[in-house]
Amino acid sequence: MTTSETGKGLEAAKAVVADDGAHVFRGWVQQGTHMALPVAGAEGSWFWDYAGNRYLDFSSQLVYANLGHQHPRLVAAVKDQADRLCTIAPHFAEERRATAARKIAELAPEGLNRVLFTTGGAEAVEHAVRLARLHTGRFKLLAAHHSFHGATSTAIQLTGDPRRWRNDTGTAGVVRFFPPYLYRSAFYAENEEQECARALEHLEQVIVLEGAKTIAAIVLEPVGGTSSGVLVPPDGYLAGVRELCDRYGIMLILDEIMVGFGRTGAWFASDHWGVRPDLMTFAKGVNSGYVPLSGVLVSDEIVETFSKTPYPGGSTYSGHALACAVAVEAIDTMRDEGLVEHAARLGREVFEPELTKMAERHPCVGEARGIGAIWALELVKSKDTKEMYVNYDTPDRLTPPGAELMGALMKRGVSAMVYINRLNITPPCNISEEDAREGLARIDDALTVADARVA
Amino acid sequence: MTTSETGKGLEAAKAVVADDGAHVFRGWVQQGTHMALPVAGAEGSWFWDYAGNRYLDFSSQLVYANLGHQHPRLVAAVKDQADRLCTIAPHFAEERRATAARKIAELAPEGLNRVLFTTGGAEAVEHAVRLARLHTGRFKLLAAHHSFHGATSTAIQLTGDPRRWRNDTGTAGVVRFFPPYLYRSAFYAENEEQECARALEHLEQVIVLEGAKTIAAIVLEPVGGTSSGVLVPPDGYLAGVRELCDRYGIMLILDEIMVGFGRTGAWFASDHWGVRPDLMTFAKGVNSGYVPLSGVLVSDEIVETFSKTPYPGGSTYSGHALACAVAVEAIDTMRDEGLVEHAARLGREVFEPELTKMAERHPCVGEARGIGAIWALELVKSKDTKEMYVNYDTPDRLTPPGAELMGALMKRGVSAMVYINRLNITPPCNISEEDAREGLARIDDALTVADARVA
Repeated sequence: MTTSETGKGLEAAKAVVADDGAHVFRGWVQQGTHMALPVAGAEGSWFWDYAGNRYLDFSSQLVYANLGHQHPRLVAAVKDQADRLCTIAPHFAEERRATAARKIAELAPEGLNRVLFTTGGAEAVEHAVRLARLHTGRFKLLAAHHSFHGATSTAIQLTGDPRRWRNDTGTAGVVRFFPPYLYRSAFYAENEEQECARALEHLEQVIVLEGAKTIAAIVLEPVGGTSSGVLVPPDGYLAGVRELCDRYGIMLILDEIMVGFGRTGAWFASDHWGVRPDLMTFAKGVNSGYVPLSGVLVSDEIVETFSKTPYPGGSTYSGHALACAVAVEAIDTMRDEGLVEHAARLGREVFEPELTKMAERHPCVGEARGIGAIWALELVKSKDTKEMYVNYDTPDRLTPPGAELMGALMKRGVSAMVYINRLNITPPCNISEEDAREGLARIDDALTVADARVA
Repeated sequence: MTTSETGKGLEAAKAVVADDGAHVFRGWVQQGTHMALPVAGAEGSWFWDYAGNRYLDFSSQLVYANLGHQHPRLVAAVKDQADRLCTIAPHFAEERRATAARKIAELAPEGLNRVLFTTGGAEAVEHAVRLARLHTGRFKLLAAHHSFHGATSTAIQLTGDPRRWRNDTGTAGVVRFFPPYLYRSAFYAENEEQECARALEHLEQVIVLEGAKTIAAIVLEPVGGTSSGVLVPPDGYLAGVRELCDRYGIMLILDEIMVGFGRTGAWFASDHWGVRPDLMTFAKGVNSGYVPLSGVLVSDEIVETFSKTPYPGGSTYSGHALACAVAVEAIDTMRDEGLVEHAARLGREVFEPELTKMAERHPCVGEARGIGAIWALELVKSKDTKEMYVNYDTPDRLTPPGAELMGALMKRGVSAMVYINRLNITPPCNISEEDAREGLARIDDALTVADARVA
């Protein structure tokens, strides 16, 4: 980039920042305190600002760009469908909507054959809960302490993470349980097997003491997302939850919004353990976020209930043609490019060994955990006491030590999310091994900033 | 269309219907009972099926295609932005997002300068309510009996229409009031002036008896949407509500999701009466639904509150670049094409005179009402008793008499929504006068089917 190009770029950036600062009301933050970096463009696993700085996207934005930025096939799918038909109301049948529904159902576990389309993850969770409640005639919901399910009324009250607190009216009928989390075991467990058995005993205790017949559904991320600590359940846990649900007539809602569509090195995270939910929510990776899309996969049993009575819910943009066209192309592209296998291999051969070494090397890292292309480094003040690097009850998501670390990462040209006391690593699932290693090297270097704080 | 083309079309239609029937879970209806018409294409104010039947779109789908179907400028905007940048996370500044926010704020009443972007109308309502609650520190909400605000938890409980009932847990803190509705006055009023004064007295009584200091917001459609009866408030009503809000420290949330962006022959419906809300929700017409987009305009006072503390809400696709690019182009197109003035003129010169005459002529029509490009014919069994053509507490939205009328309309090549006891007329705001008159003539003819039932 020449000096004059950079100059023009900086003029454009100024206008963007001015409009953004004056007119965009930003979620999750204090208005006026968040200096939003103006992004000029993106391609593959990289994006860049107007000054020509390039960043490796190690967060896939908000963990949705599973196929990376501006993938030629997805861009072509948007443009082709735009020429054909941008949108038609949900009460009509439309080719891309019908095809997307079929392709998604084909990927899903057996017995989940229908898709209720929505536009964002939270809305999908809202409908999954409603379907479960009306199907069972029960109201209460069980959700994990470590969880994030979205920001509309019920979704945010299901959420375990501190962002719930100021929204929590206590009226959503949510009862909370502890998921397996060996590093900070709630059950004094010493190994994965023990953690699994005890977490299931705990969950059953909660069910029994709450009254099984009052519980509509257990809502659970099969692998915890970046807000939930990237907790990978021990083998046997999900199957155990399924068994409890069957025994007590409770619906199992698996929230695959962040972890579905290749993220964990499987089409759905629950595939790793072969567990079939009654309702499965998805979004993000379904079309890499190129057009807003989400949905709920609904079991045949629940469809049967709503074949006898209308389903009291719906939305204007349900099954949006443009969004569905990209979903169809994204699924085909992921299959053609072997993206799921690639993500699994990266997890096994790059992230697991490299992050494990980094966890050993850095005083600020307590544990590295993850699967496929979703990993977290849990940051601590001390490896011995496991004291959290940042307190759980922070008034904002990004504390000064967190912001400092994010800054250190950006300065090194890698964009990764720091949330509470975790550094999350979730690059596009099709990132090259070379870029993956490059990003890890930059993170390795940036962590010295956090090391200095805890030394 | 040749016979062989039709044959190929029908093969394609069969595949769409098969996938749709097997895999799409449809909102608001019983699964398996709704035979979804497969739509093959659309342009301007028309769409068509695979058999080559053409329909005048007198519903703008779900009242969102304000600029009609496949408008070349909007299609070009989708494709241009797809080439440039489909999406970037909401925490970054992005040119189209910033520009859309500025342009929307420029159209809005003074003092509403920031936009919280969301992807669907319900989500916008959820956030408007949260902003009002946290700003005031109060919980309760006042909403109209005749209203629709969306289908997520709080939005559906705010909704007056029967679709709320099976979702109503009574825990959303909603208290209901009667809006002005002279045709079925709750206040024994004999004219608009009396209806207005009494509706305001009633509203104040509700506020006083509920305890003003417990009420966060009044949530109101400035003109009722198609689910709410297309109730146009008498002059003075909205100003009166504003005055009550000011007197009692209550936030005014105006829901412009359906009636904003030209629909009523003004940029926003509330412009007709010059009333400024504290929060204004929008969706649909903002970009004619070509890419899912919605949002909340936030007053400076409320922005100030969230400059001191983080706003506890947000979403992945907030301010989606592709959606915002179309919003920017839609606003410019609407201005360049004089769409707002066109909709106003159609209302004055075509819909009002023609529908008034139809109301006089048809035994099944009790009243015609509306403004700009949003009108309703209220259907009755008797003009004298005003008995509703279809009962309010129907188990489904579309009763046999309603379905029969919808069928009669479709048979005549006009797609208009029948909801409870109303036939709604909401064509694209840029429909030609010729097509508008053509559609009305077809509706006029179809109404004889309903006439026969009530004769």
